[in-house]
Amino acid sequence: MRTVIGIDLGGTNARVAKVTEDGQILQVVSAPSHALEGTEKVMDNLKALIRQIKGLDEVIGIGIGVPGPVDTVRGVMTMATNLPGFENYPMAQEIEREFNKPTYVDNDANVAGLAEALVGAGKGYKIVYYMTHSTGVGGALVVDGKVVSGKNGYAGEVGNIIVTSEGEKINHLNVGAAENVFSGTALVKLAQKELDPKITSAKAIFDLAQEGNEKAIKMIDDMAYHFALLCSAIGHVVDPHVFVIGGGVAKSHAFYFDKILSNYNNLVHVGMRNPLFKRAELSEPGIVGAAMLPISHGK
Amino acid sequence: MRTVIGIDLGGTNARVAKVTEDGQILQVVSAPSHALEGTEKVMDNLKALIRQIKGLDEVIGIGIGVPGPVDTVRGVMTMATNLPGFENYPMAQEIEREFNKPTYVDNDANVAGLAEALVGAGKGYKIVYYMTHSTGVGGALVVDGKVVSGKNGYAGEVGNIIVTSEGEKINHLNVGAAENVFSGTALVKLAQKELDPKITSAKAIFDLAQEGNEKAIKMIDDMAYHFALLCSAIGHVVDPHVFVIGGGVAKSHAFYFDKILSNYNNLVHVGMRNPLFKRAELSEPGIVGAAMLPISHGK
Repeated sequence: MRTVIGIDLGGTNARVAKVTEDGQILQVVSAPSHALEGTEKVMDNLKALIRQIKGLDEVIGIGIGVPGPVDTVRGVMTMATNLPGFENYPMAQEIEREFNKPTYVDNDANVAGLAEALVGAGKGYKIVYYMTHSTGVGGALVVDGKVVSGKNGYAGEVGNIIVTSEGEKINHLNVGAAENVFSGTALVKLAQKELDPKITSAKAIFDLAQEGNEKAIKMIDDMAYHFALLCSAIGHVVDPHVFVIGGGVAKSHAFYFDKILSNYNNLVHVGMRNPLFKRAELSEPGIVGAAMLPISHGK
Repeated sequence: MRTVIGIDLGGTNARVAKVTEDGQILQVVSAPSHALEGTEKVMDNLKALIRQIKGLDEVIGIGIGVPGPVDTVRGVMTMATNLPGFENYPMAQEIEREFNKPTYVDNDANVAGLAEALVGAGKGYKIVYYMTHSTGVGGALVVDGKVVSGKNGYAGEVGNIIVTSEGEKINHLNVGAAENVFSGTALVKLAQKELDPKITSAKAIFDLAQEGNEKAIKMIDDMAYHFALLCSAIGHVVDPHVFVIGGGVAKSHAFYFDKILSNYNNLVHVGMRNPLFKRAELSEPGIVGAAMLPISHGK
């Protein structure tokens, strides 16, 4: 079976893996990414990690997931908050020259979505919408096994879609943006105010709801409504065959995926009702999805 | 140059054209569609029109645009309000058998979007988002020259996306749905209340604004804001290279496209600012776009 290099380059760590085309991880090496020490150091470190992969000659290509929007045609990040200096840096080109393998870059949410679409919960479906429900809210559109990354790499930045006219300006996002309404961070903040100042995780809210706490139940109902509102906007744009939802909060899927679906059905045309809402399946979507980039480009 | 048959099958008329692969119309024949007289009559009528096309043997395929959502894999309408009996009717299959040409069906907004993407204002751009601003509000996503039609054919039904929490339940759409807020119909209704009960067209509102009528100016400002809000939702999902806007209201583009853009820029991430907003270019997007269906499928 063909093999590919998948790289998860974050602000803290760099992880490089050899992955089969059906998503099995054969080897992983990792090291700190040295993000604050300049692009040369980061790239030298990455190349050294790649050289540690056994049977490097056989791999058919290299994929890199990075934390920020990417111009996938040029293979460069268009914003690089967590990797200073990498805005417009020809990362793909440099790795491609060094190893003489076709190399692709995309952002971490997109590669996670690609992994789920090709070898995870979305496998076999034509249009997969992947969402992360975690400290933030993000997404990725995969059509016919290819990520739709967008002109500036911002396709999937659905956390900035407005889902309520209420709320305050919190960060660089819109007032009432999905991420500020129902991300893990937003839920904890609200729970500290409404339920208990000691709450530090979304899971604690689900636990209280399970115990019958009415305020916690109401919080989850509201979250599911706003989550469904975001999904309905996505649905009217791309009408996916399946929504695949990953991220830490989604571990509690049993408490709210059904609620998202029932709200969704009330917010879309009759013929759009009952799409699949599935929990993400992969434990390592970052490196597996990066490895899928060359595959999805037909290499 | 290769030629294709493009068909615009509406509830009132059926139009059949021979079109070159670069979008030039060589011949058009038309007749009432007999939509209320049953599927057999409609199909017989359509076949008779197709037989009137000169040089039918040479055409490489047939495309049909219909008024309603389509399952493009099966080539059937999934809802057929204006063509009774055609829900799940194997239209593409029947035409394909009769004429022995590859035949594709998609809804009218999607084929118009495809026309603009391949041979109109969106030509040369990777991701085109086409919108109609007319009696209704609709859209279509074209990626790499192919329509993304969706699981149930509802991709592009953006008129149902919620853009305000205000408003009343008017029809089958959501309260605060884009179409009920800023379609031509919605604008006229509001203008009759706010400006002059005799107003019957969106153009009259633009005329009043040009004369300095402050209420009319405010209406256009509000419309542009809500239009931008819808575009920002679409932008965060697919980050298109260009928005192409067609439809009757868009004839007055000089009065509001700039306003959409300035609002859009305030509703998206900095790196997403200033996408192209272009007016649709084609005078016959329906039949040209239908003809582009076999082309976009690589036939």
